[in-house]
Amino acid sequence: MPQYTPPLRDMQFVLHELLDVTSELKLLPRHADIDAATMNAVLEEGGKFAAEVLLPLNLPGDQEGCTLDKATHEVRTPKGFKEAYAKYVEGGWPALSVEPEFGGQGLPIVLNQCLYEMLNSANQAWTMYPGLSHGALECLHAHGTEEQKKTYLPKLTSGVWTGTMCLTEPHCGTDLGLLRTKAEPQADGTYKLTGQKIFISAGEHDMAENIVHLVLARLPEAPPGSKGISLFVVPKSNVKPDGSLGERNPIFCTGLEHKMGIHGNATAQLTLEGATGTLVGEPHKGLPAMFVMMNAARLGVGNQSLGLTEVAYQNAAAYAKERLQMRALSGPKAKDKPADPIIVHPDVRKMLLTARAYAEGGRALAIYCALLIDKMIASDDDDERKDASDQLALLTPIVKAFITDNGWIATSHCLQVFGGHGYIAEWGMEQYVRDARINMIYEGTNTVQSLDLLGRKVLSDNGAKLKKFGRLIAAFVEEEGTNEAMQEFVNPLADLGDKVTKLTTELGMKAFANADEVGAAAVDYLRVAGHLVFAYFWARMAKVALAKQQEQGEAADSFYTAKLHTARFYFAKLLPETAGLIRSARAGLAPLMAMDEALF
Amino acid sequence: MPQYTPPLRDMQFVLHELLDVTSELKLLPRHADIDAATMNAVLEEGGKFAAEVLLPLNLPGDQEGCTLDKATHEVRTPKGFKEAYAKYVEGGWPALSVEPEFGGQGLPIVLNQCLYEMLNSANQAWTMYPGLSHGALECLHAHGTEEQKKTYLPKLTSGVWTGTMCLTEPHCGTDLGLLRTKAEPQADGTYKLTGQKIFISAGEHDMAENIVHLVLARLPEAPPGSKGISLFVVPKSNVKPDGSLGERNPIFCTGLEHKMGIHGNATAQLTLEGATGTLVGEPHKGLPAMFVMMNAARLGVGNQSLGLTEVAYQNAAAYAKERLQMRALSGPKAKDKPADPIIVHPDVRKMLLTARAYAEGGRALAIYCALLIDKMIASDDDDERKDASDQLALLTPIVKAFITDNGWIATSHCLQVFGGHGYIAEWGMEQYVRDARINMIYEGTNTVQSLDLLGRKVLSDNGAKLKKFGRLIAAFVEEEGTNEAMQEFVNPLADLGDKVTKLTTELGMKAFANADEVGAAAVDYLRVAGHLVFAYFWARMAKVALAKQQEQGEAADSFYTAKLHTARFYFAKLLPETAGLIRSARAGLAPLMAMDEALF
Repeated sequence: MPQYTPPLRDMQFVLHELLDVTSELKLLPRHADIDAATMNAVLEEGGKFAAEVLLPLNLPGDQEGCTLDKATHEVRTPKGFKEAYAKYVEGGWPALSVEPEFGGQGLPIVLNQCLYEMLNSANQAWTMYPGLSHGALECLHAHGTEEQKKTYLPKLTSGVWTGTMCLTEPHCGTDLGLLRTKAEPQADGTYKLTGQKIFISAGEHDMAENIVHLVLARLPEAPPGSKGISLFVVPKSNVKPDGSLGERNPIFCTGLEHKMGIHGNATAQLTLEGATGTLVGEPHKGLPAMFVMMNAARLGVGNQSLGLTEVAYQNAAAYAKERLQMRALSGPKAKDKPADPIIVHPDVRKMLLTARAYAEGGRALAIYCALLIDKMIASDDDDERKDASDQLALLTPIVKAFITDNGWIATSHCLQVFGGHGYIAEWGMEQYVRDARINMIYEGTNTVQSLDLLGRKVLSDNGAKLKKFGRLIAAFVEEEGTNEAMQEFVNPLADLGDKVTKLTTELGMKAFANADEVGAAAVDYLRVAGHLVFAYFWARMAKVALAKQQEQGEAADSFYTAKLHTARFYFAKLLPETAGLIRSARAGLAPLMAMDEALF
Repeated sequence: MPQYTPPLRDMQFVLHELLDVTSELKLLPRHADIDAATMNAVLEEGGKFAAEVLLPLNLPGDQEGCTLDKATHEVRTPKGFKEAYAKYVEGGWPALSVEPEFGGQGLPIVLNQCLYEMLNSANQAWTMYPGLSHGALECLHAHGTEEQKKTYLPKLTSGVWTGTMCLTEPHCGTDLGLLRTKAEPQADGTYKLTGQKIFISAGEHDMAENIVHLVLARLPEAPPGSKGISLFVVPKSNVKPDGSLGERNPIFCTGLEHKMGIHGNATAQLTLEGATGTLVGEPHKGLPAMFVMMNAARLGVGNQSLGLTEVAYQNAAAYAKERLQMRALSGPKAKDKPADPIIVHPDVRKMLLTARAYAEGGRALAIYCALLIDKMIASDDDDERKDASDQLALLTPIVKAFITDNGWIATSHCLQVFGGHGYIAEWGMEQYVRDARINMIYEGTNTVQSLDLLGRKVLSDNGAKLKKFGRLIAAFVEEEGTNEAMQEFVNPLADLGDKVTKLTTELGMKAFANADEVGAAAVDYLRVAGHLVFAYFWARMAKVALAKQQEQGEAADSFYTAKLHTARFYFAKLLPETAGLIRSARAGLAPLMAMDEALF
């Protein structure tokens, strides 16, 4: 059974030493009182909940899965999930970063980010139940009527009710313009929804009193395609004017998917048989309204793989220090033992350090993005809000796709460290790989993310958002230009920055001639951009660590030594991947499109 | 449910057009009569068996798995497995490439290679039952006494009995020197074996009358470590002098592993409670004897991933042509339909072509290696046998590790083509990914393969084997140097060849100073070497295709067009990976070893 120690020290490093979030947050009126000690205390408690309550349910939850009672349409979640959720609600965790107006604690998003990383490390399948509620809450907050807000937000905030996003149908996932679920207006201003939704995460379960479904559907005579889609809120049980639950709404779970992983989460087929809903936002403007949820959800998916990468690393590192097998090629190291621990083997270390560098780099990026959201929500400076929003738009597809691709690589490496035991369910490592796989698909496949990055975020405004981020990098490189100890980090960073600029220009010109050139290069491009962003954060982390070492002298905390070694590993062994990626991106469209479809 | 069409045309291309195996085989006395028509007919029948009998059992077999009756120690395989095996035996397939002396058909190994690729495509878990028998058979053939051969080989040849390799114990996998199973000599010349083995594939089942276990164990007072290990043959049921089955031998299945994949294969824990065995080969020489099996098994594991890559590709390509979703960025292609088939999207094609290029490249390499084995076995020319043996020694770790790593990448890509549906069990794609994962681990992890390649096969003889293969490449490059149409293939091939030579020299010098440098670079090196070998075969395949196109003119078979497009894709989009790998390999040991073990 895997173990998990919440990485509080590293989170504190990112929050306080790298990003100095308390100083940044103090500039935001609503967070003026926040201090580091409070933040650390919250995370310590959150970490305890993750490690003590959720982690023990992860492996059994995977083995048991969810079960549907076809007669009642009710779903039973794995043993212990319901009780854990009750504790989570009791602890006030769902309300952590929600506005006080609806009963929330109003703490910054950076804390919620760290909390969720730990929940995901402990149990991704469980964490999706409260995780989906956040999106529903934000969406209703942004687009709901006062009535809808009053009805749903307090219960979603407290977590007594949970939420879902109902988008996908059997014939459409990425292409929501094709969706067919219908909404018929009723005399009382409500709508009756009829149709079939699939792949609805946390779509039915026994953990909450009610489930608030946000459903995309078409009004009668809606325009075809994506401009004819409206958004509705459809509760599992209707809500009476006094807030108590009324009769069951006919939105029924008619099937659960058998999946590669996240078995503990109910992936529901939902059949709407004239279910009552109310319109959220404007008619036919459902897709943009839903995208409020989608952007948060994409960051959330990156966070899932960040959590898996961390926990897989921790377990693989522990195993590598214990497992005795063979001798180092350079001669025995543990001479008193029958063999050396496998951590003496360079490639075992390479696999471990890959996971570690991806976890720590991902953590820095993800917390940075959470801070951008805090600024977007709470700054009273228009320019700062705009700047944060631009940066976040650029970084969101990178968080989603780069961190989840890295999570796939990292969890697979960590499985490999266990040798044959990694393939056996009881060790828990193969579950991390299976769970990690979905993160590359849902909330927009990683190909879709790459098109979003290169097509919409980079090329569509002539690289303005990219240049903005590039200026941060250039300023940092400039600043450290005279710091001898930083050359090993800033030189490759600057070099990659130049290459990305050149590549972007080249791709922009190609795309001008043929839009499909974007699709041919986008996945490689995103991975190169991801490395540029990681290289920037790794260089900044190295700077902090070097400064602390200098400051502390001989008594320096070994945490900084480890940080520097991991930074050096990142630049030496992971960043070079960009050389091949850039070549592949530049090879363009022709090698992909030349072959006639019939020949595949 | 996945579909599968045996790739007979592509196999015939490799056999007859690329390698001209019939001409090569005719030089080997025992295969003087072989002709292409016979070979093709055998493969057509083998393909039918795979597609019609095995494929339908693959998905249900994964879902049902194997069950152990703890009282009787008997294992029940999934529904239909037993009956399919009976048909396989009835069809004479186990005997295909076995020497006629023991009842085999004596057909060349190249045919068995192609047969097994198809069996693996259809059902890897099932194919492991007969697959393991081959190793046992070869091992007894090479090292058994006349008595042992007479007792076991005919039944293993016909497939009435199956075989296993019993190496791993709970505390040792890679490091067999640590193994503890004991063998006590008895007055009658037999031995009583006592101990615990784990991870024994096909270790217990209901498909054959008897199971022939080849077991590594220690004799009393054996030297410690790997030089004190002996090999024994231990049947599940003792065999009477007349060949009939006697009493049950106490080698019991005491547990089945719950694994990530290959659920249809019984991965057994075997407890030996004084089981009767006889010594195979010399005392204390068990490990080298077992390695006869291991080398064949490693090629077999590469073949498993080759099979998975092919079948995953076929299904993803079919899905991509049918699934309608979104429009091409460059404008609608299927204007009469609500959306374009997803094969219009460049990245979908990139994922498909990656799988295709890895499948076809892997097939060329694997059949080439099988032909080397035919030469090793059947040539009467010492030099030719030596040359084949040297080449095979070099290529075996590449087949094992490069093809299985590629299989992991390819099956994951093919899953991704299905979007969310790829994650759902009923589509069958996620099973391919789970099944593919074990191939990177068993029969020597891919890290072990890389050390075998760089340390033992390349550096230990100062690159002699590598140079031998390099001369094949150089000759080809030289030969095509004036062929204008071939420049796009031979130039990058020659360039990579030069880089590998340089890298090898550099690593050899580093390793001279510190043996751990081998471990630091080996995995990157193997992948670069794998690309060099693939580039060689892809260039040769392109040459054949170009020649055929020229010969056939306007009526040219579109098979050759597809082959050329796939070759161009390989050089444009996959080969560039080597740029990053070479950098990473050259970055050396320090970034891996600098961090103190305690800081992990």
